[in-house]
Amino acid sequence: MAEPAPAARRAAGREPASFAVAVDAMGGDRGPREIVAGARQAVDELDVPVLLVGRPEELGDTAGLEVVPASQVIGMHEDPGQGVRRKKDASLVRAAEAVRDGRAAAMVSAGNTGAAMAGALLRMGRLPGVARPAIATPLPVPGSTHTVLLDAGANPECTPEWLVQFAKMGSLFARQRYDLAEPRVGLLSNGEEESKGTALVKRTHALLSEGVGVRFVGNVEARELLSDAADVVVTDGFTGNIALKALEGGMRFFVSALTGVMTANEETKAAAKVLMPGLAPLMEEMDPESTGGAMLLGVDGVCIISHGSSSARAVVNAVRVAHDMVSRGLVDQLRRAVAP
Amino acid sequence: MAEPAPAARRAAGREPASFAVAVDAMGGDRGPREIVAGARQAVDELDVPVLLVGRPEELGDTAGLEVVPASQVIGMHEDPGQGVRRKKDASLVRAAEAVRDGRAAAMVSAGNTGAAMAGALLRMGRLPGVARPAIATPLPVPGSTHTVLLDAGANPECTPEWLVQFAKMGSLFARQRYDLAEPRVGLLSNGEEESKGTALVKRTHALLSEGVGVRFVGNVEARELLSDAADVVVTDGFTGNIALKALEGGMRFFVSALTGVMTANEETKAAAKVLMPGLAPLMEEMDPESTGGAMLLGVDGVCIISHGSSSARAVVNAVRVAHDMVSRGLVDQLRRAVAP
Repeated sequence: MAEPAPAARRAAGREPASFAVAVDAMGGDRGPREIVAGARQAVDELDVPVLLVGRPEELGDTAGLEVVPASQVIGMHEDPGQGVRRKKDASLVRAAEAVRDGRAAAMVSAGNTGAAMAGALLRMGRLPGVARPAIATPLPVPGSTHTVLLDAGANPECTPEWLVQFAKMGSLFARQRYDLAEPRVGLLSNGEEESKGTALVKRTHALLSEGVGVRFVGNVEARELLSDAADVVVTDGFTGNIALKALEGGMRFFVSALTGVMTANEETKAAAKVLMPGLAPLMEEMDPESTGGAMLLGVDGVCIISHGSSSARAVVNAVRVAHDMVSRGLVDQLRRAVAP
Repeated sequence: MAEPAPAARRAAGREPASFAVAVDAMGGDRGPREIVAGARQAVDELDVPVLLVGRPEELGDTAGLEVVPASQVIGMHEDPGQGVRRKKDASLVRAAEAVRDGRAAAMVSAGNTGAAMAGALLRMGRLPGVARPAIATPLPVPGSTHTVLLDAGANPECTPEWLVQFAKMGSLFARQRYDLAEPRVGLLSNGEEESKGTALVKRTHALLSEGVGVRFVGNVEARELLSDAADVVVTDGFTGNIALKALEGGMRFFVSALTGVMTANEETKAAAKVLMPGLAPLMEEMDPESTGGAMLLGVDGVCIISHGSSSARAVVNAVRVAHDMVSRGLVDQLRRAVAP
């Protein structure tokens, strides 16, 4: 089927009227200050139009960026569903509406993950045919492109059919995000053999093996998540959360222990200084801020969810990824891939 | 109920006739050489009687240790169930039989984990009332006792009732293993709130909250596994495997990256040397070999499953833990706790 012309697609609501990125200025532990600083940097560095969404009086110097006023904030620990239902004027809800209404093509939030997800889902809507949107989180791999883990927490309980859809969506995302011609898709399990796993995993393995338009490479163990074993790893949101948080806890443990050793005395501090030029790029690689955040796949618009502790730099990276995914037309590709 | 006298208990099969530890000499990537070396060291250092189980002609110098002959070996990647069924004369099967027959009080194997588990289960049998034995794996925590994770992989799919039993068994194990009066038991979930988790997790949370004789501290996130948040963390074997392997992969990633930075040139090598006195204890703490291995809880005997790459030192530690658990009468305590 030939693609309709841009004007027709726009009229049919299939292409954003704007290429702006709506940034939830109130979200995250360090908002609005760091978020606004990041938005300003993004405009300077990337030449991408940005809308700031939040309480105008709290945003400080916005350097003339357009502000979409929103009087409410959903707290980091607030119940996501309730927050979105009750706070209709919340910054992340208004950011999602900006995408729905064509004022922006993408949203970025470092706020309450569940609320950002619920806001995007309720205001942008699902793509037709999508059973459940999933969170795709990039994990660092030394000397290679990131591994995309999904679902990283949106849906604690899943069916095999949903996981197959995650495989399709994750594959398209990795293709656009990392310029991979045919991303290798693995299924997270407790062993490589196809006999391993829960009933959910075994059934999903069977479906993916039948051929669903992705390059399925079989089961992948959790110790391979930071390796080059697969480009995309599919799992349910409960298991994805466990894997992600275990990695996070392990890293935190190691960095804190290493810092302790390095700062023990003057001699170790001097030694640490020698190693820093080598360690800095490693830390940069491991830093969730450098990945540009996770992406919610399956909603009708680009939605990037950044780490709660996002700095200005993290916001710049998130805006870059958001704009990149808009330019590459990822949402339309997902729409076609999952159309019923 | 008063305890029967030792002689009566022994007659009733409730106390081992021997305090020896049966070591599967053929198991693991580095057996039999490292395993035999470890067994010899254990006898010297700990003054614990050890039986070596394996092919006598392949064991080298056993320094006069008693050898239980076993002509077969179940490979590390062999199907566990088939291996145990077909190879009746396998070293790990014979080690389990030595415990069943009272020739030993405990077994240690660094071989195929699933096969060691199946062998112990089939030959030693379950304790009456145990639904499913579970693997309890100690995880390092800086400045504190280890966190015991169970089930670390024995049962990919579980019921809430099994998880409650794991909580009881894990609590008793942590009490004896780490001298804790009342270990704190957490439930692994994707959030601390009791509303978080799969149906299995929520139902288990409700049961544990009703009071089952353990000190339940609620849900624990995977990033807390290496922290002091709980002494015991309960989960199903699929999720336990994912958490454990993610931690392992993260550590491997970090150690390999750090080694790369440290060995880059002469200057970094000199700096690394300065940091080594601080790093060595950390590495020691993180090393699975220093934990003494995982324990299979719920079978009628002590069964320690060591890491496949176990060195002589790992074997010494495993024998130490095995003997310690025998001396403390852990199996009888478990028997009473889970009796129907």
